[in-house]
Amino acid sequence: MPLLVTGSIGIDTVKTPHGLSENCIGGSAIYFTMAASFFAHVRLIGVVGFDCPFDIPEIFAGRDVDLAGLEIRKTSKTFRWAGTYMETMDDRVTDSMELNVLAEHPPAVPKVFADSKFVFLANTAPRLQIELLSQIDAPLFVAADTMDCWIADHLVDLSDLLRRVHCLIINEDEAKLLARQFNLVKAAEHILAMGPKIVIIKKGESGSLMCLEDGSQFILPAYPATDVRDPTGAGDSFAGGFMGYLASAGRTDFETLKTAIAYGTVVASFTIADFSLHGLTKTTREDMDSRLEILRKLTCF
Amino acid sequence: MPLLVTGSIGIDTVKTPHGLSENCIGGSAIYFTMAASFFAHVRLIGVVGFDCPFDIPEIFAGRDVDLAGLEIRKTSKTFRWAGTYMETMDDRVTDSMELNVLAEHPPAVPKVFADSKFVFLANTAPRLQIELLSQIDAPLFVAADTMDCWIADHLVDLSDLLRRVHCLIINEDEAKLLARQFNLVKAAEHILAMGPKIVIIKKGESGSLMCLEDGSQFILPAYPATDVRDPTGAGDSFAGGFMGYLASAGRTDFETLKTAIAYGTVVASFTIADFSLHGLTKTTREDMDSRLEILRKLTCF
Repeated sequence: MPLLVTGSIGIDTVKTPHGLSENCIGGSAIYFTMAASFFAHVRLIGVVGFDCPFDIPEIFAGRDVDLAGLEIRKTSKTFRWAGTYMETMDDRVTDSMELNVLAEHPPAVPKVFADSKFVFLANTAPRLQIELLSQIDAPLFVAADTMDCWIADHLVDLSDLLRRVHCLIINEDEAKLLARQFNLVKAAEHILAMGPKIVIIKKGESGSLMCLEDGSQFILPAYPATDVRDPTGAGDSFAGGFMGYLASAGRTDFETLKTAIAYGTVVASFTIADFSLHGLTKTTREDMDSRLEILRKLTCF
Repeated sequence: MPLLVTGSIGIDTVKTPHGLSENCIGGSAIYFTMAASFFAHVRLIGVVGFDCPFDIPEIFAGRDVDLAGLEIRKTSKTFRWAGTYMETMDDRVTDSMELNVLAEHPPAVPKVFADSKFVFLANTAPRLQIELLSQIDAPLFVAADTMDCWIADHLVDLSDLLRRVHCLIINEDEAKLLARQFNLVKAAEHILAMGPKIVIIKKGESGSLMCLEDGSQFILPAYPATDVRDPTGAGDSFAGGFMGYLASAGRTDFETLKTAIAYGTVVASFTIADFSLHGLTKTTREDMDSRLEILRKLTCF
């Protein structure tokens, strides 16, 4: 079933102990779309400015991606982000950020996308996420991401959003902040009580925890990667693999959700092996299936 | 097969957001022995001073524990430790520590213990761990713990120890320090090259990673505990459950090692549910078996 994503497209400059990648393509919608395209037909909604140096149709050439929702706004500049990862690779600082076109009104959802059944609302202001979601006719499964600034300053909007989505995918620290609770399982229970049926808490190199409103839980470690060059996009790739697998399966029962988490984990492990999209673009679906089986063996007893 | 443990016995005072436990029994050998006694016959070697307020035989009454290696040194005082856990429960500060009898020569291994086949050397100076180990005739499987101060200041002794043990069980931060490597899998590979056939890296609430010299790996998340009152002793309980299960099985093949890691994980989850030994002593082997099956379901896909 078609999978729609709304999110950012950016010009990234990333420095890690393994190198520097200047003015490369980034943004949540880009990582998500590339990751999900291994599994499902993806509809991308995003906006860039006149200065966008990337040929986005060329980047997704040969992949099952519909760019009808890509807007090039002639009077605006593209979102830019620059960051540096510490030696430990588990923390980063933002060196500079220019919201540019992201600070304006979001792109509209094309009418031909209104029948999308699976929807991912990447991180942005919850009010905009609600506005985008309201343009979809009858989605079967909606997942959203959010971040600390919306939790701190837009909690009313975020609470409204949480009543409208099926699944929240959120970082560990943000889950604790949102729930005002240090125990992760209790934090998940708190968030479930705010509306979604499913909460997925991403713990970086420690994997992820999924909690359902019926009390079901699933915990999966991250793939034990030794080849980590750039963690940028890991979370959006995880979401892309997760949602892409669900959309391809066309269902969201517990067993399918668990396999989707495993695919998300595997896709993220390829993303972080290289800068920008290079980790993903040199990978095949067969590589992902092989690594999924390795992950299964690594975690079963 | 009999399992021998050498380690500390202490008078602990622990403060957590959930309460205060003053002058309660603690120490690595105590937590390890109680944990392992659910699985195997345990031989304890440890020393206390004249001021020890605990009836240790009474504490282990009805359990398969041999206290022939317990020494009460009439001219010395018992080891004391006081610590406070932060609100997040994943960090603690030592408020005070008196080594007392632990700063003296270690207790001797009784002759009747010299035929022990499974041995755990809890954290102490690596030179003492070697001295204790040399008193065992022909152990089949020896595991050791260590900590940052020995890595920093006694690396020659520690390297000597690592050539004599089969397995190192170590915290995440200490593994990184020992290997001078931030990537955990690479850190494990570095440590394996120092001698042991198996490295187990404990990651607290994120579970553990086991790496073998033949390249086999196993990753297990921690049990998703909501009931965490006092994390003290979690690591030694993990080691006790792990070694206890191995000793009861009498073998150390990969499948047995994986199940042993799972039992260690489960035992630790009971330890942290209450202060001192209370989390363990109110638990049965059946509780542990039930939780093991829950953990299996939580992690398999």
